[in-house]
Amino acid sequence: MPKVVDHEERRAELAAAVWRLASRDGLEAVTVRRVAEEAGWSTGAVVHYFSDKEALLLFAFGTVANRVQGRLSEAAEQITEPLALARAWLLEGLPVDAERQAEVRVWFAFLGLALTRPAFARAQRLTYRAWRGRVADLLREAQQRGEVRADVDCAAEAAALVALVDGLAVQATFEPRALSARRQTELVDAHLDALRA
Amino acid sequence: MPKVVDHEERRAELAAAVWRLASRDGLEAVTVRRVAEEAGWSTGAVVHYFSDKEALLLFAFGTVANRVQGRLSEAAEQITEPLALARAWLLEGLPVDAERQAEVRVWFAFLGLALTRPAFARAQRLTYRAWRGRVADLLREAQQRGEVRADVDCAAEAAALVALVDGLAVQATFEPRALSARRQTELVDAHLDALRA
Repeated sequence: MPKVVDHEERRAELAAAVWRLASRDGLEAVTVRRVAEEAGWSTGAVVHYFSDKEALLLFAFGTVANRVQGRLSEAAEQITEPLALARAWLLEGLPVDAERQAEVRVWFAFLGLALTRPAFARAQRLTYRAWRGRVADLLREAQQRGEVRADVDCAAEAAALVALVDGLAVQATFEPRALSARRQTELVDAHLDALRA
Repeated sequence: MPKVVDHEERRAELAAAVWRLASRDGLEAVTVRRVAEEAGWSTGAVVHYFSDKEALLLFAFGTVANRVQGRLSEAAEQITEPLALARAWLLEGLPVDAERQAEVRVWFAFLGLALTRPAFARAQRLTYRAWRGRVADLLREAQQRGEVRADVDCAAEAAALVALVDGLAVQATFEPRALSARRQTELVDAHLDALRA
């Protein structure tokens, strides 16, 4: 089915162009015209895939989520310890290198848009829920293995850990020198260590 | 000097109109024309105070900071214990009631803008630095009184606490039911309790 492959490839090409634009120039740059320029397509071809700017932006949001998800799936294949895997899921949200810094910037730009756009707010909500839920499950698994204290409320701590990562990302984005990659990681580790049995 | 008083009053009137607009309709609504309508002024009168939209938005950012600062100054007059005051400074950032929810929404909208506007990034940076610095000072004061463990790195913990508050505010904004006001407060208290001697 060569047509299906072609369609998938075209979307991936577009996703790459949207991502390059958003990470380089901000979400304000993600317009049908500029995405077409960046991808080397006609605007008509872009409109064939995305009817308006909101659809394009939601797709851009998806590209960030997919990038992170891809790395998390890789981590899940390599790490078998639940607490170590929870740590990996949390550290993925920290802007500790250039790639993750770009993702965090695009992520926060979406946060601003989500305040007034219900479709974006829904996407944010589902993503946080999934992130928090996965970390909570891993903490519970570690608790059953006796690696996390029995008195820990895993759902509450998952919310706190995700919050810590998100908040560190905000501060590190605006003041990278005050919060080095190492410092960010140490603070997440300290919080995780406090939960250990 | 009646003219000076008048000028201050006019700015306060404008600040109130900017705040009503931003908290109700988002920062996208903060334009010279709409602020003029909201305040019942001519656009010319608004332009007399603010030459462009960026100046107006920076002023709106200042109104949020001033609202919070006003409450913090009140807290500082009533609370003498450093750890209790650090707690008050942190809880002010949580969207635990309608007033604070509106502030947090406007705050996050600024975060989105700050990614591509240096003047906004600077304002964000200075605000976080001041918040983190004040919490760190209070933790150190509590440490000198023997109320915080001697091994606590107060600067690092202040960054973590501010991050926790900020991250909880993000999740609570998009999913208020998953993070009630009580749950948010409990999570900050748990983190503070872990620092106690």
